[in-house]
Amino acid sequence: MNQGLTNINGQIFPPDQARISVFDRGFLYGDSIYEVTRTIKRVPFLLDDHLRRLWLSAEKLDIPMSHSMDYIREQIQETIAALNIDDVYLRIIITRGLGEIGLNPALSQGNNLIIIALPLPEFHSWWYSQGVHIIVADTIRNLKCTVDPSIKSGNYLNNVLAYSEASKQGAFDAIMLNNEGHVTEATTSNVWIVKSGILMTPPLEAGLLEGITRGKLLEIAKLYGLPAIEKNFNADELRAADECFLSATIKQLIPVTKIDHRPLGNGHVGPVSQKLLKLYREHFHIAES
Amino acid sequence: MNQGLTNINGQIFPPDQARISVFDRGFLYGDSIYEVTRTIKRVPFLLDDHLRRLWLSAEKLDIPMSHSMDYIREQIQETIAALNIDDVYLRIIITRGLGEIGLNPALSQGNNLIIIALPLPEFHSWWYSQGVHIIVADTIRNLKCTVDPSIKSGNYLNNVLAYSEASKQGAFDAIMLNNEGHVTEATTSNVWIVKSGILMTPPLEAGLLEGITRGKLLEIAKLYGLPAIEKNFNADELRAADECFLSATIKQLIPVTKIDHRPLGNGHVGPVSQKLLKLYREHFHIAES
Repeated sequence: MNQGLTNINGQIFPPDQARISVFDRGFLYGDSIYEVTRTIKRVPFLLDDHLRRLWLSAEKLDIPMSHSMDYIREQIQETIAALNIDDVYLRIIITRGLGEIGLNPALSQGNNLIIIALPLPEFHSWWYSQGVHIIVADTIRNLKCTVDPSIKSGNYLNNVLAYSEASKQGAFDAIMLNNEGHVTEATTSNVWIVKSGILMTPPLEAGLLEGITRGKLLEIAKLYGLPAIEKNFNADELRAADECFLSATIKQLIPVTKIDHRPLGNGHVGPVSQKLLKLYREHFHIAES
Repeated sequence: MNQGLTNINGQIFPPDQARISVFDRGFLYGDSIYEVTRTIKRVPFLLDDHLRRLWLSAEKLDIPMSHSMDYIREQIQETIAALNIDDVYLRIIITRGLGEIGLNPALSQGNNLIIIALPLPEFHSWWYSQGVHIIVADTIRNLKCTVDPSIKSGNYLNNVLAYSEASKQGAFDAIMLNNEGHVTEATTSNVWIVKSGILMTPPLEAGLLEGITRGKLLEIAKLYGLPAIEKNFNADELRAADECFLSATIKQLIPVTKIDHRPLGNGHVGPVSQKLLKLYREHFHIAES
């Protein structure tokens, strides 16, 4: 399958030999946390931010971290060096670890660290030039009081169910609402709208992942004088926006030009989305796709 | 660690060699379903009911089943025969399978089937004679509109979080409420109360797993003229019950004699719980622990 390498607890394996015990709690219960980033010329992109969030996820799930940030950084470097290509997709997974079967986290014998390094998938340039089609899913996003969506964990069925709805309708992705009808996020990215020149993205209280790209875009907007706020909006306000886009580390900023099978605004990629994507790429020296 | 055997797609491994690809969606996303049962004298207990529910979980998650029920039955028998002991704990896991990384279920190349067979853990006889202590968790049970709790899936963090609350308080287990304040279930069992001689367990609409033991207990109660109903109740009603117990395939019927650090009723195992456990064991010819 993949042309990559996987580092498991410091040992590097080709994809078909990258295996984990069926008694790992990551496999039994999705009792794991993870981060995804990429390299730009062999340097992991915003790694400090991603590791910081990994530690936050661990804290929220009460997963004791057996490895230091430095050790994880070293293992990432070794894996990138062994793969020997410039643009790498990186997935860093920490499981609560192996143990006797049982929900009790104390049964774990300590983390397993898995670093998956793959050639960065190709971007489709039409995503950026034409924009994509999204739907509003019937599947509601997990509530903060159940499994907080600010935790990037191995429990992803909620998002898989929403993505499947999009996929069945031929759409690129799905937007998930919370149980109050507010927009939260897409299945693997944050969501933004532009209305009357103002950028808006849902606040963390809506129940969503605090995206690294989301944070950087808020900073960049401020830096360049684009008005941007964190504010709740519902599905109708989403559909009535002038512009809409998704943000995520790998995908950067993907314009949305169709929602629920209807053109958004004039059906073309909007000027604010275009401008913000350009500023983001310039700011981080990311080549255009 | 465990003294057992694991069957992966028809091949039998000792525990330390039972491994699965890190690209399996069960590991990446908890995109898997499972069932747990035991053997009684080498015969899997209520296997038809468990396999039926496994298929229901698959249907609700839109997981195409690559194996027939008969194939799974055969593989279970072979694993039990190889383990060569009478009382076996059985965990049957189906993952959506291996594939390129991405939420899209269509990336999967077909199920992986994992059958974990271990010596049945010993029961603590005091669970049944003295009863256990449970708490009401702050963690709310997943809503039916997010990831339906009637699906027995590999996404178990919601329950792990609630169990951790119990564990920190020295309790045996935690009861989870839904977002309307109704009792749903414990972290790996259904919950029942007795009030003025009437048995009550929350209805499926509350958001819970349709327990096999729960169903059998409802049948047995009817058969022996014990009044039993499916009805919503809240945490206060739970704490004010005359009796309370948990039901699950492996644990059977475990009396609860303390809730949130306070004795329930007179603090002793109640007569209805005792009678129902006795009837259940007689009905299924299960030896007393």
